[in-house]
Amino acid sequence: MKHEPRIQNHKLIVAYDGSQFEGWQIQGSKPTVQLAIENALTKCWKQAIRIHGSGRTDAGVHALGQVAHFHAPLKFTPQTCRAALNNNLPAAIRITKVSHVPTSFHSRFSTTGKEYRYQVFDGEILPPLDLGRYWHLPRRLDLAAMQKAATNLLGTHDFASFTSNPGYQRQSTIRTIHHISFTRKGPRVTLVIRGNGFLFRMVRNLMGAFAKVGHGRLDAVAVKKILEAKSRAAAPYTAPAHGLYLSKVFYN
Amino acid sequence: MKHEPRIQNHKLIVAYDGSQFEGWQIQGSKPTVQLAIENALTKCWKQAIRIHGSGRTDAGVHALGQVAHFHAPLKFTPQTCRAALNNNLPAAIRITKVSHVPTSFHSRFSTTGKEYRYQVFDGEILPPLDLGRYWHLPRRLDLAAMQKAATNLLGTHDFASFTSNPGYQRQSTIRTIHHISFTRKGPRVTLVIRGNGFLFRMVRNLMGAFAKVGHGRLDAVAVKKILEAKSRAAAPYTAPAHGLYLSKVFYN
Repeated sequence: MKHEPRIQNHKLIVAYDGSQFEGWQIQGSKPTVQLAIENALTKCWKQAIRIHGSGRTDAGVHALGQVAHFHAPLKFTPQTCRAALNNNLPAAIRITKVSHVPTSFHSRFSTTGKEYRYQVFDGEILPPLDLGRYWHLPRRLDLAAMQKAATNLLGTHDFASFTSNPGYQRQSTIRTIHHISFTRKGPRVTLVIRGNGFLFRMVRNLMGAFAKVGHGRLDAVAVKKILEAKSRAAAPYTAPAHGLYLSKVFYN
Repeated sequence: MKHEPRIQNHKLIVAYDGSQFEGWQIQGSKPTVQLAIENALTKCWKQAIRIHGSGRTDAGVHALGQVAHFHAPLKFTPQTCRAALNNNLPAAIRITKVSHVPTSFHSRFSTTGKEYRYQVFDGEILPPLDLGRYWHLPRRLDLAAMQKAATNLLGTHDFASFTSNPGYQRQSTIRTIHHISFTRKGPRVTLVIRGNGFLFRMVRNLMGAFAKVGHGRLDAVAVKKILEAKSRAAAPYTAPAHGLYLSKVFYN
């Protein structure tokens, strides 16, 4: 009787340079992060293995702490698995951690929240080495005004105004935002936003509105009205993908 | 009688992402920084204009503060010139400053010194967004040992051991180093080195030796002996181009 190896659930923490990929999700043979990782898994396990991410990221969006999981026969220690995967991945994707997790763990359904960062450079000339990492807005942003407008969005609201494609998700557009902060180091501005979940393009659409506030073209009251309109037509601003970073995914 | 416009000497400060170019110096139609800037000047002045850099940088080497100059008919204010050039350059090259300087100013012959930086990442996994910006050495460097070895190199010495191609330069291999420091922020280590001038590949060769010191494979005495040997054969280590940044060029 052949001994069947135990099937183990594996959790991955993944960092990637989004500029090198057409987003997370597999789309045929296009270069996507999911495809690259599944190809690496095939090399390590000599069989096709499907991975599940905590959520999609758009083309160009970076990740510091994307989470994914897959079920596969127990074959490597977590440390060896990480090294084997990284040896078979392009350097623009790194598995920063592998852990063995209970079968019940699901990277998408078990999540309790996420943290995104958004980087803006508001100096006149974008340094070449910051290309593809910052949204370049060559006019100084008023962070105090942005923080004030953000405060109105904290808590539980219907964020329909801030999702680009309401038909994309059949489910509720109600989400809870726990934290929004803006910090500045010289011309480098970072938004950190944490919530129980984010709709399609929600962070980029929020950042688009905050940028208008930072340039004095919207105020906190106007942003609140956009939220209350519950219509994307009320907020036609989207910040570009290349300033966005999926930084953390939270689980209990 | 046609009025001839005055010929003006222009000084440029230039930043670039070296990964996008085959170095500074024109080599036929290969993508080089000098070629890109001369093409932009041709568009702005409608005539061919030759620029002179403070020195070459190798393929892959970055610049935060390269300096160049060119003589051309007075046509723009410095501010307008900067904007016109940046509009005609790839985003991987930015002119950060233009100034009108006396005819006698020469970016290479007038220089009194240079500052380079070299970036190393000595953590186990190089974050994808640091690719092409850090030399990845996945073993912790001993900065105190490196600093001690560096101290022996301060001052005026014959640096023949640290230039890759002694025949390349017919002139003296004697240089004066004023400052060498290593700083660490987590796994990110930065070398800052300032001197009156640097030989071909000198900073990369020094960094190669310092890395051996940082890993305990050379000590300060051994580095001093390499210097005293005045022979490249004594120091066969070269750090890769992509960790190197020409940060400042000094003039009186």
